[in-house]
Amino acid sequence: MKETEIIKLFQEELKSKVLGDDAGFIKLGDRWLLLTNDMLVWRTDVPDFMTPEEAGAKVVTMNVSDIAAMGGKPIGFFFSLGLPRDINEKTLREIAKGIKRGTKRYNVEVLSGDTNESNELVIDGGAIGEAERILLRSGAKPGEVVCVTGDLGRPLTALLLWLKGEKIPREIAEKMKNPIARVREGLELANYASSAIDISDGLSKELWEISKASKVKIVIDPNSLPVHEKVKEIVKNPVEVALASGEEFELVFTISQEYLDILSFEFSIIGRVEKGEGVYTTTGEKVPMRGWEHFAGGNNDIGS
Amino acid sequence: MKETEIIKLFQEELKSKVLGDDAGFIKLGDRWLLLTNDMLVWRTDVPDFMTPEEAGAKVVTMNVSDIAAMGGKPIGFFFSLGLPRDINEKTLREIAKGIKRGTKRYNVEVLSGDTNESNELVIDGGAIGEAERILLRSGAKPGEVVCVTGDLGRPLTALLLWLKGEKIPREIAEKMKNPIARVREGLELANYASSAIDISDGLSKELWEISKASKVKIVIDPNSLPVHEKVKEIVKNPVEVALASGEEFELVFTISQEYLDILSFEFSIIGRVEKGEGVYTTTGEKVPMRGWEHFAGGNNDIGS
Repeated sequence: MKETEIIKLFQEELKSKVLGDDAGFIKLGDRWLLLTNDMLVWRTDVPDFMTPEEAGAKVVTMNVSDIAAMGGKPIGFFFSLGLPRDINEKTLREIAKGIKRGTKRYNVEVLSGDTNESNELVIDGGAIGEAERILLRSGAKPGEVVCVTGDLGRPLTALLLWLKGEKIPREIAEKMKNPIARVREGLELANYASSAIDISDGLSKELWEISKASKVKIVIDPNSLPVHEKVKEIVKNPVEVALASGEEFELVFTISQEYLDILSFEFSIIGRVEKGEGVYTTTGEKVPMRGWEHFAGGNNDIGS
Repeated sequence: MKETEIIKLFQEELKSKVLGDDAGFIKLGDRWLLLTNDMLVWRTDVPDFMTPEEAGAKVVTMNVSDIAAMGGKPIGFFFSLGLPRDINEKTLREIAKGIKRGTKRYNVEVLSGDTNESNELVIDGGAIGEAERILLRSGAKPGEVVCVTGDLGRPLTALLLWLKGEKIPREIAEKMKNPIARVREGLELANYASSAIDISDGLSKELWEISKASKVKIVIDPNSLPVHEKVKEIVKNPVEVALASGEEFELVFTISQEYLDILSFEFSIIGRVEKGEGVYTTTGEKVPMRGWEHFAGGNNDIGS
């Protein structure tokens, strides 16, 4: 079955109202509890230039990032490991150290963990968070601007170099090896932004998600994308790479212009929200929906 | 690496205070939030007399059961699927229907779900719950009695018959195919019991967990174990089977005798709590620590 068919099947059968954002949410007393989970399959998700410790820390980051994208404060982490029989102690200890490092970075408690025997190494991680106000994908309104934190393009560039067997410059590899979730930015955006999403599958795909959920047209200026300088030096098509590069864990958000001066962190304005549907460039070209999975394959959110 | 070594390694590295009970817990406002997760590996955890729908529902039950054992009210469910490339739609749809059935049974919301490509079919599920007062493994006190809900022995009997290629009577298979978490009982016990645990790995192992966590001796009367009548007919060693049978999802609890009449559900008194350590029979024999994994292998809680 195709990935899109699998997602459709589960959405049909489960009919959960809260699937479809970065994290699921439920009201608990006077605040929102957020929950997300995301599985890392070693064979497809961990290129060999990453260490087991980096992979362990990344499982924390990728889940915390989903909490951040909802404007939540991360409070807990949990995981399940599928371990092949011949796993060695050194690898396992490094993974554990990575998980510890990740949870210390975001100051979250490890709430639950279990291990199981499986044919291949799998780390399923998850995070919970809390929020007074949550940031959905569905709040973008015509007239607002579209922004993104940080720089783009490095993870896909690293992967492309790796697939070709070429040397990966340290600066390029770094974002793939040690990504950081935008927790502080997400908490601030909860007060000002109208929608947000984190870049796990690639900017183009995330823009399409906001466009579909908010029922708006998004128009981006390709020249305004914050492509990393080193990426521009290496790849021939930096804009396409910036649009498709996943596991960036940057936040894409829509916001009314009046709030831009209030934000305390750096970001780039990359486009605007209009009436209509779809994602286009300022020159009228349709931005392809494909993202990360087009290059790397494998992982799909059914919802959160 | 051995299972015990893996658990030890993670406990050493993570040093989380909350690992070590059925579910992790964290204070959120004026109540406790509980979280647990548990992975089901198809090849080792799903015998072929179970349908995919039953397996889907069971992933919900086994996680909700951990919330019940802590005296919590389950509120949400989440899952990650690892799917082999050749998975067929029928199997997948049945798993989804099973998850839906499970979540309806316990009235919990599906908060998050994702799918990934993997070599073998893996369902990692989890549940969250809330509680005003939580029930730990560590509260048992000398002078109290040890009780268990429901009947014992059917899941292991089913597995033993299946391994021998013999026909499994419907009544025996039923508890493995359609287990039910003791949510109502757990909620009631939160007000009266001093400790509780659910039977996922076998009564003997769970008794040892309470004994170790509470630093008490537990003395059980083998003749008082509620072995299912049909199990007594089939197996030669019903007491041993009742002690080792896992995935029962019954609750074992310790409680002061004065509260016994208040409880609104059926249970069996199987022993008493004394000063000291370890788990023994009334005739002075040490009860072996081995449980489910001794027969079935594979799954280990690091903590919750």
